[in-house]
Amino acid sequence: MPKLSTGSTGAFTLPGEAGYEALTLKLAERWGADVIRDSDGTQLSEEIINAGYGIYSTLCIIRDHNGWAARNPDKLQQTFLITSPKVAVQDYVSIYLLEDFFAEQFRVNDSREAFKYWQVYDRTTGKEVPGEQWNYDRESGNVVLTGITPWHKYTVSFMAYRIWEEISMYNHTTNHWDKEHLMQIDPMYKGTRQYLLDWMEDWCREHQATTVVRFTSLFYNFAWIWGSSGQNRHLFSDWGSYDFTVSARGLDLFAEQYGYSLTAEDFVNGGKYRVSHIPAEQRKLDYMAFINDFVIGFGKQLIDIVHKHGKLAYVFYDDSWVGAEPYNDRFGEFGFDGMIKCVFSGYEARLCSGVKVETHEIRLHPYLFPVGLGGAPTFMEGGNPTLDAKQYWINIRRALLREPVDRIGLGGYLHLVEPYPDFCAYMEKIADEFREIKELHRQGQPYHIKTKVAVLHSWGKLRSWTLSGHFHETYMHDLIHINEALSGLPVEVRFIDFGDVRQGALQDVDVVINAGNAGSAWSGGDHWKDSQVVDALTEWVYKGGALIGVNQPSAVDGYDHYFRMAHVLGVDEDTGARVAHGKWAYEVQPVQGLVPDGVSIRPKDNVYLTGGAATVVREAEGKLALTVNSFGRGKGIYLPSFAFSWENTRLLLNLIRYAGNELEETRYLPDNLYTECAYYPQSKRLVVINNSGQPQQTTIETDYGPQVVELEAFDTVIRVMGRN
Amino acid sequence: MPKLSTGSTGAFTLPGEAGYEALTLKLAERWGADVIRDSDGTQLSEEIINAGYGIYSTLCIIRDHNGWAARNPDKLQQTFLITSPKVAVQDYVSIYLLEDFFAEQFRVNDSREAFKYWQVYDRTTGKEVPGEQWNYDRESGNVVLTGITPWHKYTVSFMAYRIWEEISMYNHTTNHWDKEHLMQIDPMYKGTRQYLLDWMEDWCREHQATTVVRFTSLFYNFAWIWGSSGQNRHLFSDWGSYDFTVSARGLDLFAEQYGYSLTAEDFVNGGKYRVSHIPAEQRKLDYMAFINDFVIGFGKQLIDIVHKHGKLAYVFYDDSWVGAEPYNDRFGEFGFDGMIKCVFSGYEARLCSGVKVETHEIRLHPYLFPVGLGGAPTFMEGGNPTLDAKQYWINIRRALLREPVDRIGLGGYLHLVEPYPDFCAYMEKIADEFREIKELHRQGQPYHIKTKVAVLHSWGKLRSWTLSGHFHETYMHDLIHINEALSGLPVEVRFIDFGDVRQGALQDVDVVINAGNAGSAWSGGDHWKDSQVVDALTEWVYKGGALIGVNQPSAVDGYDHYFRMAHVLGVDEDTGARVAHGKWAYEVQPVQGLVPDGVSIRPKDNVYLTGGAATVVREAEGKLALTVNSFGRGKGIYLPSFAFSWENTRLLLNLIRYAGNELEETRYLPDNLYTECAYYPQSKRLVVINNSGQPQQTTIETDYGPQVVELEAFDTVIRVMGRN
Repeated sequence: MPKLSTGSTGAFTLPGEAGYEALTLKLAERWGADVIRDSDGTQLSEEIINAGYGIYSTLCIIRDHNGWAARNPDKLQQTFLITSPKVAVQDYVSIYLLEDFFAEQFRVNDSREAFKYWQVYDRTTGKEVPGEQWNYDRESGNVVLTGITPWHKYTVSFMAYRIWEEISMYNHTTNHWDKEHLMQIDPMYKGTRQYLLDWMEDWCREHQATTVVRFTSLFYNFAWIWGSSGQNRHLFSDWGSYDFTVSARGLDLFAEQYGYSLTAEDFVNGGKYRVSHIPAEQRKLDYMAFINDFVIGFGKQLIDIVHKHGKLAYVFYDDSWVGAEPYNDRFGEFGFDGMIKCVFSGYEARLCSGVKVETHEIRLHPYLFPVGLGGAPTFMEGGNPTLDAKQYWINIRRALLREPVDRIGLGGYLHLVEPYPDFCAYMEKIADEFREIKELHRQGQPYHIKTKVAVLHSWGKLRSWTLSGHFHETYMHDLIHINEALSGLPVEVRFIDFGDVRQGALQDVDVVINAGNAGSAWSGGDHWKDSQVVDALTEWVYKGGALIGVNQPSAVDGYDHYFRMAHVLGVDEDTGARVAHGKWAYEVQPVQGLVPDGVSIRPKDNVYLTGGAATVVREAEGKLALTVNSFGRGKGIYLPSFAFSWENTRLLLNLIRYAGNELEETRYLPDNLYTECAYYPQSKRLVVINNSGQPQQTTIETDYGPQVVELEAFDTVIRVMGRN
Repeated sequence: MPKLSTGSTGAFTLPGEAGYEALTLKLAERWGADVIRDSDGTQLSEEIINAGYGIYSTLCIIRDHNGWAARNPDKLQQTFLITSPKVAVQDYVSIYLLEDFFAEQFRVNDSREAFKYWQVYDRTTGKEVPGEQWNYDRESGNVVLTGITPWHKYTVSFMAYRIWEEISMYNHTTNHWDKEHLMQIDPMYKGTRQYLLDWMEDWCREHQATTVVRFTSLFYNFAWIWGSSGQNRHLFSDWGSYDFTVSARGLDLFAEQYGYSLTAEDFVNGGKYRVSHIPAEQRKLDYMAFINDFVIGFGKQLIDIVHKHGKLAYVFYDDSWVGAEPYNDRFGEFGFDGMIKCVFSGYEARLCSGVKVETHEIRLHPYLFPVGLGGAPTFMEGGNPTLDAKQYWINIRRALLREPVDRIGLGGYLHLVEPYPDFCAYMEKIADEFREIKELHRQGQPYHIKTKVAVLHSWGKLRSWTLSGHFHETYMHDLIHINEALSGLPVEVRFIDFGDVRQGALQDVDVVINAGNAGSAWSGGDHWKDSQVVDALTEWVYKGGALIGVNQPSAVDGYDHYFRMAHVLGVDEDTGARVAHGKWAYEVQPVQGLVPDGVSIRPKDNVYLTGGAATVVREAEGKLALTVNSFGRGKGIYLPSFAFSWENTRLLLNLIRYAGNELEETRYLPDNLYTECAYYPQSKRLVVINNSGQPQQTTIETDYGPQVVELEAFDTVIRVMGRN
C-alpha cells in the first residue's frame, strides 16, 4: 500500500507529563507530535518545555481565583431556581427555597437588585401572585405566602449564587476529593473584568514558553442544577442552555438595551426551564444575543492580551462554552486562532471542521485516564484502550474523510499508556493515517454525490451538527443519529432554519430533512404555523425537491393535519381525532436497491396514510416503517424513527440518492455497507475504510473499473487509481 | 347443587321461523320461552303466532318506504361531507366533490337551502374562502376556486343526501344481494312525519297478534361514511356521532331556536369530524340537545300510536339509535316499555340494566346466522357455536350477577341450531341460570365492597358504561377495558362528568378513575383547564379520596405539568420540555396482596416521577407500570395502560380495595382470580363462576367460614350458605 510522502509528522498534540520526560519525548517522536500540552492534573517540566516543541497551556479563566472570589461574594455567578410546586391546604403556605437543591452548589441571592426578579406563581391558575401576598424570611430561608387559594399549588422562583464551579464539583464529588471548593466569578461585573484582565496580563508574562493559550472555554457553563436528593442528583442538565449566565446586573443591562425586562419565568418556565431542545421564543433569542455580545466583547479583550504577548489563543469548545456559539456569524470577532474539540463522534469532527477559524484540532478518545465515560475502565485492569480507540476512530475517521481538520491530539496522564504497547502502536497508525488524509484534502476535495442536503430545524446553522453536547447526552433525539450518519456520507450537508426557508435557502438544495418529536427544536414546533414556510416547501417539492420527514416532522396542533407537510409526505399522525377514521389498506412495495439488509426502524403508533397514493416501502410490527409519496416532480419520504447503525446509515444514503434521482449511480459506493470510501480525484486516491470489527471484502465501482478491496477489522486501505 | 324453585320458565325471547314450526315450539318449551319474535329475513307463521306466546315484531321505522322516498327525494336523510385537501399549483383549482366517496351512498344536495351551508376552506391558513372565489358546476360535480393562493391546500364542505340506508348497504354489499337499495327518510321534514304517523297507525291495525313493537332503534344512524376506494371503504365510522342527523331544515330550525347558526365546519372539522372520543364543544352539545328534543318529540308520537293499539313499545338500542341517548334524563319521555340491547360484553349488560325503563332485555350471541363477527363461521362448517356462546356468556354472566336484567333472548334463523344439540343444551342451561340469577336479585341485592367508584370523563352519566358501540369498535381506549372489568366487580360504580365534580359529586364516592389519551373525551381534554375541577379533586384526595389515573389522566397543555393532577399522582408525562431533567431513581416496592400473578401492563415512554415520594409498585421494560402516591389522607394511583384480562381485572379490584383502605377485607373474594362470586345475603346464596376454559378450584372467605368450590370450565355453582 503506497504511503504519501508528505505530512508524515506534525499536526499532533501530545499530553506531556513531568516526571516522565523520556516517555514524553519518545512518544512525541513516535507519534510525530509537534506540540506538547499540559492537562488537568499534569504539569510540564523544563526539560519538556525546552525540547523544541510548541507548548499549549490550559486555562479555565473563571475559576481558580478563590481568594478574589472570597473577597467578592457578590460577583459570583448566579442562576434562577424554582421550587417544586407545593399544594396549599389552607390559605397560607411556607416554602423552603433550597429544599430541593444541593446546598453546596447554591446560596440564595436576596440582595435588593436580585430580589426584584423573584416571582411567586399560582401554578394551578398559571398566574403570578402579587408581592403583597408573600414574604421572604431570611432567617429560615422560607418564603411565606398568605391570603392565597387553598388547594392551589405554588412555586417560588428566586435568584441564587452558584458557589461551587460545576465541573470541579463533579470531579470533586466523583473522586471524593478533599480540597477547597472552586468558585466561578462573573465577568458581568466590572470589578471581575478588571481583575481578570490584570490576571491575564500577569499570566502571559509568567508563561514565556507557552506558544498557545488553550482556553478551556470561556465564562459560562452549561446549566447543571444539582438536587438535594441522591435519588435525583442532576435535576437539570442542558448543554445548550444560557441559564447559568444570569445575574441581576446582566438582567438590568438587558432591560436597558432591549427596552423590556426579562423575568424569572422567562428562564424557569414553571420548572421546565427553556431547554435547548424546544424552540426558543424571541425573548430567549434576544437574551442569547445579549450574552453573545457580552462574551465576545470581553473574550476579545482577553485574547488581545494573549496576542500582545506573541502567543496564539485557542478555544477548547467545552463545558463553559456558553455565549461562544462557534456557528454564530460573529464568532470570528473573538480573534481565536484555533478551536479544539473533544470528539467521540463523527458529527463532532464535522462541527469542528466547519468553524471559521485558522486551526481546527480534535482531541481524540480515550482520554488518558484510568476510567472513561460512565466510569468504565480504560487504562486499568479490565480496560481495553486500543479497542476503545478503534471504536472512536471509526466514527471520526469517516467524518475526516469528508471534511478535514488540521490537527489531532490526546489529553490526560501520558504515563498510563506505558503498559499498553498495542495502544501506542495503534495511535502511531492513527496519527499517520490522519496526516495522510489531511494531505489528500490539501490536494483536492473528495468526490460526493450530486444531491445536496439541508437539515431543517429551529436553530439552523447556529447549532450545526450538534444538538447540544455529546451523543450520549442527546441520543433520545432522532436527529443526532441522522447527523452522525450524515457526518461520514459523500453528501454536501448544511443546516438551515425556518427563516432561511423563507429567504430562499431551498433553491440551493435537493433534499430537506426534518426530524424530531413534535414541539421540539428539531421538528420545529410553532415555526410550522408559518404558512410561508409550508408554501415554500410545498412549491419546492412540487418542482422537484424531496422532503425526508422523520418521527413527527412539521407537526403542530391547530390545523386539519398534525403534520403540516402531510400533503407532501402522504402520511400524518392521528392525535386522537381520527380514531374513528378508516385506515388505507396497502401492500408493501419494496424499491429496488433502497433498503439494505439489516436495517432496523422502530415504528410509531398512530401514523396513517392520508390517501391511497403513497407507497409503503417497508413496515415493522404491522405499522408504517418507510413510505414514499410522489408530489409533483418531487417526493415526500417518511420514516417513523432513525437510530444510528451502519445499516441505517446506508439506508439514509440510499434515501438521499433516491430523493435526488441518482439511485442508479453507484460509483464510489462500496457494495458492502460495513465499508465506506472516499475518492479524491485530484490525487487519484481511493480511501476505503472498514467500520466493523470483522474483516470485510468490498467492491467499489470507479472511473477505473470495479475495485475489490479486502480489509482487516477497523482497517483503512488507500489505493492509487489509474495505474491498474 | 340446589335449584331455586321459582322462575324456571319465562323471561326468554325465542326467534321463531315459519316453516320450522315444530322446532320453534319444541325449543320454546325447552328454553322456557314466553315470547317469540321475528328477525331480519324470517317470518312467523300463523301456527307460531297462535301458539300462546307473546309476539315481538321488528320494525326499522325509517327504511322500507322506497316508494314514498322515490316520490320525495328532497326528504331523504343527509350529512355533511368534506373533500380531501387539494393543493393548488396555480391560482385556481377544481375539486370534484364526490371523488373520495362511495357514489352509491351519496348524492350532492345543492338545493338553495342546503347550498348556503357549503363552505370552502384554505386549510393552509385555516381560513374560510369567501363565496366570491368559488363556484359549483353542477354538470361536472366540481367546485372551482379562483383567485386563490398557489401552494395552499383547499377543501370543500358540502351537503349530501344519503341514498342508501347504511345498514342495509352493508348487508347488501357483504352478501352480494341483488335487490333494490333501501333509502332512509328524514322525519325532520313535516311531510315525512305525517307519512310515518299514518304508516304506523296502519301497521298496528294490520298486526293484531303483535304484543310488542320492537323498534330497531329510531331515526338516525350513527355516522358511517363510505369511500370510493376499496382500499379504504369505511372512511369514517363513529357509533356515537350525530353527523347523520344533519339536514338544511334541521340546521335552520336550530338557528331559530338557539339564536346562532351552525356551519359545516362544526361537523366536518377540517376532515377530522367531531368524533365522540373527543370532548364536545358547547355548539355540539347544543346540537345534540336539539336533536334529542326532536327525536323524543316525534318518537313519542309513534309510541303513543303503539300504546293506543294496546301493544308495548320496546326499543332495540342499536344502529339508528342517535338522539335516543338511554342515559339522558329525558329518555323516560319516550314512553318506551322496554329496551333490548345486543350484548357481546359485560359492560353492555350493565348499560342495559341501568336504563330507566320497565323491561330490560339482552339479546345474546352468537346470532343464529352462518357467520359471526368479522365473518368467522358460527353455525356452519368450522364453527363452534357452543364455545362461542360460553365465551360470550362468561363476559355477560358476571355483569348480570351484579345488576339484573329482566329478559334474555336470541335472534336469527332458528333452524340453524338443529344440527347443534350441544348448543341447544347449553342454551337451556344459560336460560335456567339466568332465571335463577334474576330470582336472586329479586330477593335482595348482592354483597359489594364498601369502596364506591366514579368513572370521570367528559360525557359522564350520558355515556355510562359504553364509549360508543361495541368493544371491538373502541378497544383502543383504556377505558372500555376498565368498564368491562368493572362490569362484573362487586363494587358500586357511577359515571360522572366535570360539571358533576364542580357540583359536589365527589362527596358520594371513594375512588375516581380517569383513564384515556390526552385530549380524548375519556381523559377529559380542555375540561382539565378548569381549576375548580382540579381544586375539588385535590381537596377530596387530601381528605381521603383516591384518584386512579390511567394512561394520560388529567393531561392538558399549558401548565407547569402535563397531568393537571400530577401533584396527587406523583407522576407526570414529559412532552419534550423535560428531556434534560434528571429522573428520580427508585426501587420497586411491591405492596402485599396488590398485584396478582399474570398481570400485564404495557408501559408508556416519558412518564416520570415528579419527586422521590411516590412508590413504584411495579415496572415493565424498565419503565413505570404502577405507582402509588400518598397525598394527605388519600392516594394517587397511576397505571400507564389497562387492557382487559382476568388478571388485570383482579388487579383493578385490588387497586380499588387498596384505594378504599379495605385491602385486608377478603370476604366474598375468591382466592383464584379465574373465578368470581356474588353473595346474596337475603337468599343466602353464594354464586361462584369460572371465567376460564379450564376446571378451577377456588376458596372463598364467607361469614360462614371458607368455602372451597370446584368448578368445571366456564361453569356456575350456586351454594346455599348457613347450612354447613
